[in-house]
Amino acid sequence: MNVLIVYAHPEPRSLNGALRDFAVAHLEAAGHTVQVTDLYAMNWKATLDAHDMTGRAPDDRFDPALDSKRAFETGTQRDDIAREQGKLKWADTVIPQFPLWWFSMPAIMKGWFERVYAYGFAYGVGEHSDTHWGDRYGEGSLAGKRAMVIVTTGGWEPHYSPRGINGPIDDLLFPIQHGMLYYPGFDVLPPFVIYRTGKMNAARFDETRAALGRRLDDLWTTQPIPFRRQNAGDYEIPALTLKDGIAPGKVGFSAHLAHEG
Amino acid sequence: MNVLIVYAHPEPRSLNGALRDFAVAHLEAAGHTVQVTDLYAMNWKATLDAHDMTGRAPDDRFDPALDSKRAFETGTQRDDIAREQGKLKWADTVIPQFPLWWFSMPAIMKGWFERVYAYGFAYGVGEHSDTHWGDRYGEGSLAGKRAMVIVTTGGWEPHYSPRGINGPIDDLLFPIQHGMLYYPGFDVLPPFVIYRTGKMNAARFDETRAALGRRLDDLWTTQPIPFRRQNAGDYEIPALTLKDGIAPGKVGFSAHLAHEG
Repeated sequence: MNVLIVYAHPEPRSLNGALRDFAVAHLEAAGHTVQVTDLYAMNWKATLDAHDMTGRAPDDRFDPALDSKRAFETGTQRDDIAREQGKLKWADTVIPQFPLWWFSMPAIMKGWFERVYAYGFAYGVGEHSDTHWGDRYGEGSLAGKRAMVIVTTGGWEPHYSPRGINGPIDDLLFPIQHGMLYYPGFDVLPPFVIYRTGKMNAARFDETRAALGRRLDDLWTTQPIPFRRQNAGDYEIPALTLKDGIAPGKVGFSAHLAHEG
Repeated sequence: MNVLIVYAHPEPRSLNGALRDFAVAHLEAAGHTVQVTDLYAMNWKATLDAHDMTGRAPDDRFDPALDSKRAFETGTQRDDIAREQGKLKWADTVIPQFPLWWFSMPAIMKGWFERVYAYGFAYGVGEHSDTHWGDRYGEGSLAGKRAMVIVTTGGWEPHYSPRGINGPIDDLLFPIQHGMLYYPGFDVLPPFVIYRTGKMNAARFDETRAALGRRLDDLWTTQPIPFRRQNAGDYEIPALTLKDGIAPGKVGFSAHLAHEG
């Protein structure tokens, strides 16, 4: 299988760097092919702007969505964007790996999604009708592929528990796992989360590495998070609200998990 | 009063640009002093890295938190960071304004928070004891100031409603409003959200502008979102989970609102 690790940490001699190296070696030893998009090492351009496409008149009004669409359709995207899209097409599984900074991914990785997820590639795909509102949330260009987030936090596990002050980790990751990965079609596996990274020692590191190894061994068999498919009958179209009979009375992120119905 | 607008849109001739200009003019007409941090116009460096501080040995291992702390304490931060910290200290109210891209703020603004929110400035402040877990979530360097998010979405309002497929807008904004604004001490006002920006016409634009004007007139009197203060008795320390008697049985982001108790 082909695995793409999209990796964002500024220091290779970090816990994230060590886990990244372990993941690459572990997957390769199992016979898989791995590519790493090392955002800091490649000095990835984080900011989506008019320089992302060639052939624009410099005084034209810049529309982030429509200019992205035109560039994607006409092959006038910057090379760095097209190259990452090629890696996404190549991959069977994509692993975004990052430290949780201010309760989300680092800016450099957010900018990877903003720029690589072109209109026509990751959104604005498919027809809109009374029963189908675009190919998204379970359908789309990246359907059939798997994704699994690896994330580290300085905070303690209870701080991210259901009643923890930071909010539950699954809810903090919902905009990423549902909004950025499930949206263009990925099957999203439960995340691999490492808490309290400041208290890592050799024993805990060994345990963490072993646990990650098991998750990597099971990449192809782990059950994905059961997000509801947008166009499979659970949602009103075009309001895209859950139908009354689906998870009745429930609100919020967890209502979009099928086992909650 | 002093108002800082932190603004992220690549095109000044956009809806966001028009609303930003309106907000500046409206606030100044009411006698307030306004500064705008126009992240795209100033070519803001989005990526937190070792170049953010001077005086490091180039081969030293880079620790994003500890290097930030040292640079903040010793005055060796890059000038652009220190300048934005100065604006935050100057402001009575801070208004982050941005289009919602992939269910969060644009990368360039995420990078503003990552870099300007130094260790010792916005986190890692205050003592830790059995009753006090740092000055955060209602206390901190920015306590006494107000913040209000202005955000635009291409999606429709029902898509962001309590049972909408994207998730409720208040939950999508929780990592920003609670995790990035309430955390260092801001009182956070309800956000000003403009949906379905692709269907803006002159009449809707006039209404939107008028509604924004009213929110700006009420900046000093609007009731903040009633997030629970970390060190005021609702949370176990150091687990930072809600005590059993607080919002019993409730989980998730909304449990951290006091009126839910």
